[in-house]
Amino acid sequence: MSSLIRPQRDGQGFRLESRSVLETDTRRVDHIMGADLNTEVGNRIRQRRALVKMDQAALASRLDVPVSVVQGWESGSGAQPLDLTGLADVATALSTSIADLVPAPEDDLTDGVRLQLPDEDSSIVGSRGGVDYYVYRCLVRSPSVPMLIPLVVDVLVDDRERAEFNGGHAGHEFIYVMEGSVHMQWGDEAAPKTADLPTGASIYISPYVSHTFTALDGRNARLLAVNF
Amino acid sequence: MSSLIRPQRDGQGFRLESRSVLETDTRRVDHIMGADLNTEVGNRIRQRRALVKMDQAALASRLDVPVSVVQGWESGSGAQPLDLTGLADVATALSTSIADLVPAPEDDLTDGVRLQLPDEDSSIVGSRGGVDYYVYRCLVRSPSVPMLIPLVVDVLVDDRERAEFNGGHAGHEFIYVMEGSVHMQWGDEAAPKTADLPTGASIYISPYVSHTFTALDGRNARLLAVNF
Amino acid sequence: MSSLIRPQRDGQGFRLESRSVLETDTRRVDHIMGADLNTEVGNRIRQRRALVKMDQAALASRLDVPVSVVQGWESGSGAQPLDLTGLADVATALSTSIADLVPAPEDDLTDGVRLQLPDEDSSIVGSRGGVDYYVYRCLVRSPSVPMLIPLVVDVLVDDRERAEFNGGHAGHEFIYVMEGSVHMQWGDEAAPKTADLPTGASIYISPYVSHTFTALDGRNARLLAVNF
Amino acid sequence: MSSLIRPQRDGQGFRLESRSVLETDTRRVDHIMGADLNTEVGNRIRQRRALVKMDQAALASRLDVPVSVVQGWESGSGAQPLDLTGLADVATALSTSIADLVPAPEDDLTDGVRLQLPDEDSSIVGSRGGVDYYVYRCLVRSPSVPMLIPLVVDVLVDDRERAEFNGGHAGHEFIYVMEGSVHMQWGDEAAPKTADLPTGASIYISPYVSHTFTALDGRNARLLAVNF
Repeated sequence: MSSLIRPQRDGQGFRLESRSVLETDTRRVDHIMGADLNTEVGNRIRQRRALVKMDQAALASRLDVPVSVVQGWESGSGAQPLDLTGLADVATALSTSIADLVPAPEDDLTDGVRLQLPDEDSSIVGSRGGVDYYVYRCLVRSPSVPMLIPLVVDVLVDDRERAEFNGGHAGHEFIYVMEGSVHMQWGDEAAPKTADLPTGASIYISPYVSHTFTALDGRNARLLAVNF
Repeated sequence: MSSLIRPQRDGQGFRLESRSVLETDTRRVDHIMGADLNTEVGNRIRQRRALVKMDQAALASRLDVPVSVVQGWESGSGAQPLDLTGLADVATALSTSIADLVPAPEDDLTDGVRLQLPDEDSSIVGSRGGVDYYVYRCLVRSPSVPMLIPLVVDVLVDDRERAEFNGGHAGHEFIYVMEGSVHMQWGDEAAPKTADLPTGASIYISPYVSHTFTALDGRNARLLAVNF
Repeated sequence: MSSLIRPQRDGQGFRLESRSVLETDTRRVDHIMGADLNTEVGNRIRQRRALVKMDQAALASRLDVPVSVVQGWESGSGAQPLDLTGLADVATALSTSIADLVPAPEDDLTDGVRLQLPDEDSSIVGSRGGVDYYVYRCLVRSPSVPMLIPLVVDVLVDDRERAEFNGGHAGHEFIYVMEGSVHMQWGDEAAPKTADLPTGASIYISPYVSHTFTALDGRNARLLAVNF
Repeated sequence: MSSLIRPQRDGQGFRLESRSVLETDTRRVDHIMGADLNTEVGNRIRQRRALVKMDQAALASRLDVPVSVVQGWESGSGAQPLDLTGLADVATALSTSIADLVPAPEDDLTDGVRLQLPDEDSSIVGSRGGVDYYVYRCLVRSPSVPMLIPLVVDVLVDDRERAEFNGGHAGHEFIYVMEGSVHMQWGDEAAPKTADLPTGASIYISPYVSHTFTALDGRNARLLAVNF
């Protein structure tokens, strides 16, 4: 069941194909209690409805459902199942977004901190242009800070003619060269800026700036990349 | 089916009970195409998964579902229905919020503008302490700017001994006294600040500052209140 | 000394020329104590310097000034005057913005509220294309919420052939038609969208959407416009 | 002139005393042209003044200065020097913050990227409780992203009885254990949470969570800390 990721470049960024994962990821998601989620969504519908000065009957009328259905949603009983399409309609009727009606992520921090030990990392090979390009080792993440995506990245390709740009991505990126040296290219892919960077160099990359790394000196290089 | 809103104060702000709406609200929500929504959510799952360097198999493994289910979600085919609880689990597995995986509201603006004619307003009576306290007339809103909630508010009570505070609310509020005069009370309900405000006075109220208005001079007053 | 504002359209929005103010604005700004400001800026320099792990000597070295000058700034004594150019250099040396080193506005709210009585409003004529176009009456503002700019706007021109667009502006805008009727034009000035709007109509305008109003029915119209 | 930083804990975080820097920091700040800065501030004053519908005379009147002074500020000629206290008064008169009237940092990025080579790092010893506690090596920073403060941190103390908490700080923090092992303590200093973390462990710390590291196994440890 485990498999490697094989991102291939297309217009929208990457198309992903599976192969085999380096390390089996044994962490399982604890299922969120449906009851709690329904209660939370029900509360948010009720609060938003009060804010826009609408009563249950008016909301029901706009959605063309019986008032009892709205009451069921707001009670969080789960007796009136609210699927995504239904929630989208409720959001529109209340002049808001679906995002406004769903709960924030549960805090998985311990007194404000989350730790990850090395043997909890999951690794994956990222392919570009049909070639194994990077190995990513995923470091600590938390739904409390979804923009934080820290990775140890092994740079496998040392032929800069085979460099493949990533197309850029949302979010800022900080990179530290942990081992080896890298050739960095960024910006306009047809005429990129370039730099050779030794161990200990550090890099800031703005959102949406396309970039790529290849190894120098005929050996793998290792980066610490922190997306934030 | 139409009914009045009867907000009654409780610890959490207002408890709402229905009575009868002043004007029937005939606007109906156009149902969002479920197919489009599934496609959009599928795209967002796929993009987030690529961002955190997880392949379909790893995501499936964390969620204890077959890979084909993840593929179904991402294809947006709708063949694999994804309910709210399921989406919450996916969000947790991808270290993000449900809100990150659902689409932004559809833009209901016309070249950046939304208009509302007076006969499209919906009105509702807000009750406090068992008394009809305000009549709210709801002005233009849009899911594109959910924090904007503009209202014409008729102040029905002129006995300041019967003033009932609103407990404060999220968001800033701007108020303009359109007709009549009002007695405003705000802050600590036990020892509120007060002011008498004539037609033409304007007020800024910070988020979460509890406040209330009663009419002066024995006649109704009318406010324009813009929450933003 | 009082004068009217005569905004004339240029590429950057408006060029302003003075004429005469309708009402003399008698409010004076209480001068902020220079000592307090120096202390606050000094504290912020010191805190930022600690955050980026730089000592006074290193900061002085980067700025090519004696350490005693940095000590003077941080003490807030005012003995080492720090002008804007100097502060810009300090900000650059500390990898931050000038804005990060200056204090937030003093809170001019009373328990979270700011009031303005009608006789405290200042009025001004806005000219477009050499014609008196609008009269603006400025309602309550506060440095605590600089994006809030509420205005009563009298629409003086009723010939839509003489309509002059405003070019759009940052910030959202909500408008309520208080008196009379208006013809609204917005979007592409060469082929604008249009609408006739009676008393009681309400409008949301997105940031940077160019728009203009002319009066209908041969009489002035009055708008309440809330920029936020 | 070079000196070490000796942060000592006080109620407000750290009090800093100078000693001697490990490496001389030879980078100098290029002085921003005063003329450009004056022009930029002048433009911002003029734009804000137009936004709040005030003319030069009204602004001058509020500030009790001749109109020619306001004209001088807005022209950016520098003939009317505007110091910080003056700018604070202008901001208040225009219902905004000083920060709103000063320019954003100059972009020091090259096509969206900023690089720092290892020999450009500056190092400094951070002392706590009178003891050399950490050595900080400062990695790439940019005024374009002032919240990004990446550091290599050598942990010098291995006696956890001598651990000194940092009191927490604004901003998120990501930490990666590069070399050695560390004992981490965080939260309530009287009864902290603790963890032993080997090379390769990664940590997320929420804003304002007080924390500290001591080395394990009788040898220095090295962290990569990214504040963002």
